[in-house]
Amino acid sequence: MNILVINAGSSSLKYQLYDMRDESVLAKGKVERIGMDSAILSHEPSGKNEVREVSEILEHTTAIRKVLGMLIHPEHGVLERIEDVHAVGHRVVHGGEAFSSSVIVNEEVKSQIKRLFDLAPLHNPAHMLGIQAVEQNLPNVPQAVVFDTAFHQTMPAHAFLYAIPMVLYRRHKIRRYGFHGTSHAYVSERAAQFLGKPYEELKIVTCHIGNGASCAAVMNGKSIDTSMGMTPLEGLMMGTRSGDIDPAVVPFIMAKEDLTVNEVSSMLNKHSGLLAISGISSDMREVTEAMQSGDKIAGFAFDMFTYRIRKYIGAYAAAMNGIDALVFTAGIGENSEAVRKAVCSGLTFLGLEFDDERNRTGRGQERLISTDASKVAVLVIPTNEEWMIARDTYALVSGGEPHGIAVTPEQVPSRGS
Amino acid sequence: MNILVINAGSSSLKYQLYDMRDESVLAKGKVERIGMDSAILSHEPSGKNEVREVSEILEHTTAIRKVLGMLIHPEHGVLERIEDVHAVGHRVVHGGEAFSSSVIVNEEVKSQIKRLFDLAPLHNPAHMLGIQAVEQNLPNVPQAVVFDTAFHQTMPAHAFLYAIPMVLYRRHKIRRYGFHGTSHAYVSERAAQFLGKPYEELKIVTCHIGNGASCAAVMNGKSIDTSMGMTPLEGLMMGTRSGDIDPAVVPFIMAKEDLTVNEVSSMLNKHSGLLAISGISSDMREVTEAMQSGDKIAGFAFDMFTYRIRKYIGAYAAAMNGIDALVFTAGIGENSEAVRKAVCSGLTFLGLEFDDERNRTGRGQERLISTDASKVAVLVIPTNEEWMIARDTYALVSGGEPHGIAVTPEQVPSRGS
Repeated sequence: MNILVINAGSSSLKYQLYDMRDESVLAKGKVERIGMDSAILSHEPSGKNEVREVSEILEHTTAIRKVLGMLIHPEHGVLERIEDVHAVGHRVVHGGEAFSSSVIVNEEVKSQIKRLFDLAPLHNPAHMLGIQAVEQNLPNVPQAVVFDTAFHQTMPAHAFLYAIPMVLYRRHKIRRYGFHGTSHAYVSERAAQFLGKPYEELKIVTCHIGNGASCAAVMNGKSIDTSMGMTPLEGLMMGTRSGDIDPAVVPFIMAKEDLTVNEVSSMLNKHSGLLAISGISSDMREVTEAMQSGDKIAGFAFDMFTYRIRKYIGAYAAAMNGIDALVFTAGIGENSEAVRKAVCSGLTFLGLEFDDERNRTGRGQERLISTDASKVAVLVIPTNEEWMIARDTYALVSGGEPHGIAVTPEQVPSRGS
Repeated sequence: MNILVINAGSSSLKYQLYDMRDESVLAKGKVERIGMDSAILSHEPSGKNEVREVSEILEHTTAIRKVLGMLIHPEHGVLERIEDVHAVGHRVVHGGEAFSSSVIVNEEVKSQIKRLFDLAPLHNPAHMLGIQAVEQNLPNVPQAVVFDTAFHQTMPAHAFLYAIPMVLYRRHKIRRYGFHGTSHAYVSERAAQFLGKPYEELKIVTCHIGNGASCAAVMNGKSIDTSMGMTPLEGLMMGTRSGDIDPAVVPFIMAKEDLTVNEVSSMLNKHSGLLAISGISSDMREVTEAMQSGDKIAGFAFDMFTYRIRKYIGAYAAAMNGIDALVFTAGIGENSEAVRKAVCSGLTFLGLEFDDERNRTGRGQERLISTDASKVAVLVIPTNEEWMIARDTYALVSGGEPHGIAVTPEQVPSRGS
């Protein structure tokens, strides 16, 4: 069975085609600048040369048509016929409280995703465009959706509720959801396999540190807390997002700088974080290089960034009463030896012994970067959200259970019940 | 030397009179409902009966005149003549970056406190009324001011800066300041004395848990991080304050509920926290009682409240690479054995061994509530901010140094410098 994995953004679309017989990737690629007359399709067929095509792509239906055309292209294609795409799996950022596992797309699922537009206005509408574009191009192919929030639906209510009037939860579903769930689930389970220990008996802190970044506390195979909140703004300092701030700062800035609700949101999401503090870049590679060349502000931004990850690790150690494994993943987590080293410095109170040599070598591979004697196993696990989406889609389409068997999400107690 | 300590609020004023020869309290009391025709002065002279007087007190100058009248009252007084008040010390909530220790009041200090009205609109204007009221009643008596923020001015910049555009720090001084500093300073130093260990070599987490609540990481005698931020809203869940939330929740609520900047601030400060979640009370005693009577929502609010303290303890353990002592103080911290027990449960990974029996006994006294074998000494230390204010005022008026010798606050690096 061949499964096409889609991650649709508002003006971009990434794809990856799996052959599930051996879980190999047949092709991957992306469409950028959807909505422009010079949109770019970059296609990487396995075992063939990469191709790049510039054309007018005004909306997602055309983008999907172009992608499918490329998959069966006589020269660049990897499939004989379009009927060889047997199922499609979509990444969907926000599943709210409606979804605690992946599901097959049907009318009810689509209307639930639409109801969540409010909570994820930048993401869910784009995902819906992707789903509809596939429907139009492949009307008979089953589709599944895999949610970034689903893995965190096991959080207990005392971890997910904010201490604000309860009516705001009841009326607008304002609460912590957490994101990057597919990644936290993947790397935490891989960590258990790597260590040869039962996933259901481990206390793991996972650090998904990319341009967006979040930590999660995964206890006995379940997410019990995570740093992102109702939106991906909360928690760690990120490429362009502020992460945690005094909530009173928001109205203060609005009043002082005469900003609207949209302007202050945009400032906190797009013009903050590493970019704002370093004054150099939202890209940790550039900030680290500047630091290593002696730029003090870059070094300061690096310190802030890593200090805040360290505090979350400590908080989650307290939430789980200790840590067995600490996992780094995503762009920065997998590739920045400097960030990993700084985060782990000063965690010897946990019994963590960092191994500098292991940290420096083996890039791109799953590996241990703590000493053999360390009480906390520190691991680098390259994440693989696309594979998780393909696997869940395959399971659902085959009539099986998706990964992370649907749990009954934790409930907030109520006087009425 | 007799020192009058004043804590002036917008409609209330608390006072305490010290004889600094033996640091005894000669009298204490409070004026409530300033601005009303039925204001109440409650006066507790040492060794005499408490008195209560209802009268019209329209502003702070009258309130101070009534207090001074009570101090020399033939029956309820404790002084011969008004000249026996030798100095006055004020609590001031916000010292911004201008003050890293207590100072004698002069024109420059007054204008700096006024410049901080923006950052503490609910507190600093009231403190200024208190200072001016004393000037009018006791024009020749020296006054000192002791700031809630001063102790935290040692925080490194990577702990106090928010990851938002740097211009907001430069232009409006938006950053973490932290509060309850006088209390965190007092109880951390007392903890070192209690343990008979050098304050300058200890890693202490102090939990000031009252109606307002904050944690601090005190390392080698200096505050290196604290949970309250630019305002006292950030951090822990409190009586009526939300503490940490996703900053994106603020504009979301404003848009959904059509709230103004002031309305959302008021909601987060006055209608959130324990009150909002329990639906019972902002008072932890009432919530705990309801929980112990089987109210599940009260129990849930209690869990949220204590879970969030526990996470901060973990975060600060990571910030300091371990903890030698954990201190509970203020209304809830000193009096709620249930809160202390819940917070400390699940911290054995730190080597913390809680002693139930010690936790239950000795109320009101400085004491150890961990076992003798515990690697983390858990202490209850009743706070004494008034005594700290009296002591600093005495030192300054006598020409000495106030407690917490003025440090050069940590600077944010800048490209220009």
